[in-house]
Amino acid sequence: MFETAELHHTISEADYRKEVVVLRTELLQLQDALREADFSVIVLFQGVDGAGKGETVNLLNAWMDPRGIVTRAFGDPSDEEQERPAFWRFWRELPPKGRIGLFLSSWYSRPILDRVYGLTKTATFEQHLGRIAAFERMLVEDGTLLIKFWMHLGKKAQKERIESLAKDPRTRWRITEKDRKHCKWYDRFMDASEQALQKTAIVPWTIVEGYDPHYREVIVGRMLRDAIRQRLAPKETQAVLPVTVERPADSVRSDLLSPLDGTLQLDKAAYLVRLEELQGKLNRLFRRAKQGGCSLVVVFEGWDAAGKGGAIRRVTGALDARDYQVIPIAAPTDEERAHHYLWRFWRHLPRRGRVIIFDRSWYGRVLVERVEGFTPPPGWMRAYAEITDFEEQLHEHGMLVVKYWLHITEEEQLRRFKERQGTPYKHYKITDEDWRNRAQWAHYEQAVHDMVERTSTHRAPWILVEANDKRYARIKVLKTLCDRLSAVLKT
Amino acid sequence: MFETAELHHTISEADYRKEVVVLRTELLQLQDALREADFSVIVLFQGVDGAGKGETVNLLNAWMDPRGIVTRAFGDPSDEEQERPAFWRFWRELPPKGRIGLFLSSWYSRPILDRVYGLTKTATFEQHLGRIAAFERMLVEDGTLLIKFWMHLGKKAQKERIESLAKDPRTRWRITEKDRKHCKWYDRFMDASEQALQKTAIVPWTIVEGYDPHYREVIVGRMLRDAIRQRLAPKETQAVLPVTVERPADSVRSDLLSPLDGTLQLDKAAYLVRLEELQGKLNRLFRRAKQGGCSLVVVFEGWDAAGKGGAIRRVTGALDARDYQVIPIAAPTDEERAHHYLWRFWRHLPRRGRVIIFDRSWYGRVLVERVEGFTPPPGWMRAYAEITDFEEQLHEHGMLVVKYWLHITEEEQLRRFKERQGTPYKHYKITDEDWRNRAQWAHYEQAVHDMVERTSTHRAPWILVEANDKRYARIKVLKTLCDRLSAVLKT
Repeated sequence: MFETAELHHTISEADYRKEVVVLRTELLQLQDALREADFSVIVLFQGVDGAGKGETVNLLNAWMDPRGIVTRAFGDPSDEEQERPAFWRFWRELPPKGRIGLFLSSWYSRPILDRVYGLTKTATFEQHLGRIAAFERMLVEDGTLLIKFWMHLGKKAQKERIESLAKDPRTRWRITEKDRKHCKWYDRFMDASEQALQKTAIVPWTIVEGYDPHYREVIVGRMLRDAIRQRLAPKETQAVLPVTVERPADSVRSDLLSPLDGTLQLDKAAYLVRLEELQGKLNRLFRRAKQGGCSLVVVFEGWDAAGKGGAIRRVTGALDARDYQVIPIAAPTDEERAHHYLWRFWRHLPRRGRVIIFDRSWYGRVLVERVEGFTPPPGWMRAYAEITDFEEQLHEHGMLVVKYWLHITEEEQLRRFKERQGTPYKHYKITDEDWRNRAQWAHYEQAVHDMVERTSTHRAPWILVEANDKRYARIKVLKTLCDRLSAVLKT
Repeated sequence: MFETAELHHTISEADYRKEVVVLRTELLQLQDALREADFSVIVLFQGVDGAGKGETVNLLNAWMDPRGIVTRAFGDPSDEEQERPAFWRFWRELPPKGRIGLFLSSWYSRPILDRVYGLTKTATFEQHLGRIAAFERMLVEDGTLLIKFWMHLGKKAQKERIESLAKDPRTRWRITEKDRKHCKWYDRFMDASEQALQKTAIVPWTIVEGYDPHYREVIVGRMLRDAIRQRLAPKETQAVLPVTVERPADSVRSDLLSPLDGTLQLDKAAYLVRLEELQGKLNRLFRRAKQGGCSLVVVFEGWDAAGKGGAIRRVTGALDARDYQVIPIAAPTDEERAHHYLWRFWRHLPRRGRVIIFDRSWYGRVLVERVEGFTPPPGWMRAYAEITDFEEQLHEHGMLVVKYWLHITEEEQLRRFKERQGTPYKHYKITDEDWRNRAQWAHYEQAVHDMVERTSTHRAPWILVEANDKRYARIKVLKTLCDRLSAVLKT
């Protein structure tokens, strides 16, 4: 979920200066228009310590007219507050129509801390999150524009930031023992945060990398501007579902895939040795998993011609034919079309001790169906939450969910397409549709970015595979599959 | 919540015969039209044992063309089913578009049973209900028409029904030891059921009294007919929110208030004695509650001129002026109008050990705002769940919520209106608006019926007060307030 916010995004000083001038002007204009509007704006800042939540709020107060802004940070509840239900303190601070509320450490902080400190169990935590979701839903249904930022820093980046603050005599005071403890508990925080984001995704989150102050400022500013502007636009252009706030497409660049190294490769001799090794290991691991009643759900997604079929055959080559099934997902049948889009996947779920491999999957909803417009925005936007919910049910039932995105570069795809066209027995593998999809490369990239950001979870993370070299890709698939299986068998 | 389904509703044999002929024809026609529709219909039958769930399903199969109907009852899960996540068995039985699924003992049964048998705690139960809500939401957002019937029988009626089945040699086989046990656990079932209905009200329930077979058949048939017909109607006439299914206004008669005895009265001497007694008692009880940090939220609703003010004065007369506050709710202020409708009530919540009395309340949302059209249907329909959720937060925080509906008959209201007009110093109490409201009597009755059905809970039940005689009403208010306080102090 946070992979997209650990890429060390930055923005150049010159670009920043240029953009800020425009942003500030636009934000002030929108704030002015907002005064007469019949809705309020609430902006939540949650996330990792040190990711710049407070700084961003200060900045927005500087950029805009602070008289139209209510800024609130919620620390320990007062006596007055303790004597009322937990949400009372938030209700009393809700901004009126025409105003903007910037909320720091609001309704998420206490439930997440309680979970991290072990004061609540999963069920209670989920209960708290359920209440938050109901509260937010109620606000949004009443017309409130609710914008939720999750400010993120990677584990290493957080540690560095805390150390650098502690070293500087001017900022040393900001670092407490609690900060150091929380830093050590980074993984616990991520686990709870991921749960929180998932269970409250009905009002979607924007994850912002806090690594570079200028970058995060611009992202928050743009998002805020676009969301208010969209909301002030005439009703006809708005989304059907008031609950779903669409994230403006251009506000986050989709550069998740570009850092993947396209030059990684394996020579044939090394490949054959590793292949045999890993297939043997996979076979042994799976037999142990099978005895424990564990089943495996493996998803292959990737660009056309990325080598999904070949990778799948290397996996199934390690398994007994009675234990696995490969389900190729093409256009749905009539019967499938007559049901919810998840129905065709639910029906294939394996019994205990089996492997099911999906060659393309439910992610079609947020990839091809989104890009080609087969499903309108409210439909595919809802799908992220539906999908993480689905996979969570598999996980809870003891199934291991492994998801691969096979990545090739645009040039490599072109080479493969041409090769397919030039080779008679590979001809059937290339269609006009493949060429059409290729023309939409940038849109697919954006869709993949959003998919990974919103559906990669601790329990079912996306594994991005550099697949320009088929041998390298197959070995990486086998190796990571073995790793996930080993990890499950250990627990 | 179930008050409206314990009124021993019946329908005459002649009316039944006449209506069934029409209903069957209409249902068959609709079923035919449905075949081409791009949505499926799922009808859930949950509720009390012996309330006629199975019989109703059989009947619908007889009334309609069984080839377009999928009937499923879910007992203990099979081996196959146990090896998949809990919802797998429901997914596999979902009807395709154009078909109707009648589901008995479906996704609610196991969570409710687990709760009643003490296998789960509140948090886990709420977690289960949260999943159900997400599942139903997903289906409805995908276009499914989901109709949920809760078949109800009062405690005594259930016992009688089980005894009569057990006595008859032809039906004796139907009664097991488990049925007898469940019958004894009636209150536990009601408590869990109420929770389930509340937490899943986003797709609204229709509560049907199962006492008279003909009555329940007609109600279910009408509701099914109206819901399918509404859904097949052209899009423009549909509700804005796909999630909310409006219950056809005429399908349940609003006869909750008519059985209230308008002739109950107290003579002045008895009244004065009781008044002093009860005010003393209330004072003592409240002082004890105050020491325990308990606070009290009392809501007065009722017809215009029903005597709310007088009843409130009899309550406050028993309290120390420093301990209570009366909040009269009239048209909202500008500031209040700029917030969510619940905001003005949240802000008045009492500290520990205080009493807050609302003279009219948040129920305006589902009474005057509904009837006068100030709030469009999706808004007031959402409000039932928002309100029960709000009151639950008060309850959980240790506040006692007591709600009164003061009922007078139409004739008595007329008498009082005329008296007010004829008495100079009462003149200010009667306005044109009162006369306008009076003209809407039937609509208000329907609104009160729905309000009680959907917001009367174990934790915050509605108390209906026969108020044609002011003395009787005041004594009943004081007495029931003392009862509620005593009950809380005992736990």
